[in-house]
Amino acid sequence: MRTPKKKSPVVLVRPRIYIGDGIAIGPGKIDLLRQVGETRSIAAAARALGLPYKRAWLLIDSLNQGFSRSVVETATGGKGGGGASLTTLGQQLIERYDALETSLNASAGKELQALRALAD
Amino acid sequence: MRTPKKKSPVVLVRPRIYIGDGIAIGPGKIDLLRQVGETRSIAAAARALGLPYKRAWLLIDSLNQGFSRSVVETATGGKGGGGASLTTLGQQLIERYDALETSLNASAGKELQALRALAD
Repeated sequence: MRTPKKKSPVVLVRPRIYIGDGIAIGPGKIDLLRQVGETRSIAAAARALGLPYKRAWLLIDSLNQGFSRSVVETATGGKGGGGASLTTLGQQLIERYDALETSLNASAGKELQALRALAD
Repeated sequence: MRTPKKKSPVVLVRPRIYIGDGIAIGPGKIDLLRQVGETRSIAAAARALGLPYKRAWLLIDSLNQGFSRSVVETATGGKGGGGASLTTLGQQLIERYDALETSLNASAGKELQALRALAD
């Protein structure tokens, strides 16, 4: 399955979604998943985003724990360790987050303009 | 002017808004502003949110810089320093953020359900 591509850089609203008490999904975790899908490595994804490796690992683990299923699969072995890849759940998370983000940006025109007007 | 009250705790989507290159407004900054308005103290607001004082101060300063206007006014003097209060801009930010958040949560039903379904 292909990794969902990064959207256009002109994004005005990026949501953080809370599901029950246990799951919070925001732009940071989604960007991280997308980088893992592209680089096939948690370390490379962390570097690309300027995150400490441990922080990246904890963010991914918080999703694994929240969903009680893995969003990233890792393989051990080989010099420098094995690779990492998104599970189907990880890919679906990105896709559905992107769909939500697109919808929110399309629907919030009036309130967004009111906020942006404060910066004029 | 009254400090805008905290909304109902059942919030599913909390937006982060980018205005141009210089301003990012997300739930963390908004919650901090709201606490400053309620406690009239940056230190008390930081404590209430479990943030280091310096982090809270930097978050507020990033808004001041981004808007080139202050969102919080501080007064010096007295034992333990003076108080802090929201400027009109700070209050408007909270109000307009809340309006956007309410609108987003009302409009994103289908995409939110698709995301939440991943947790079932």
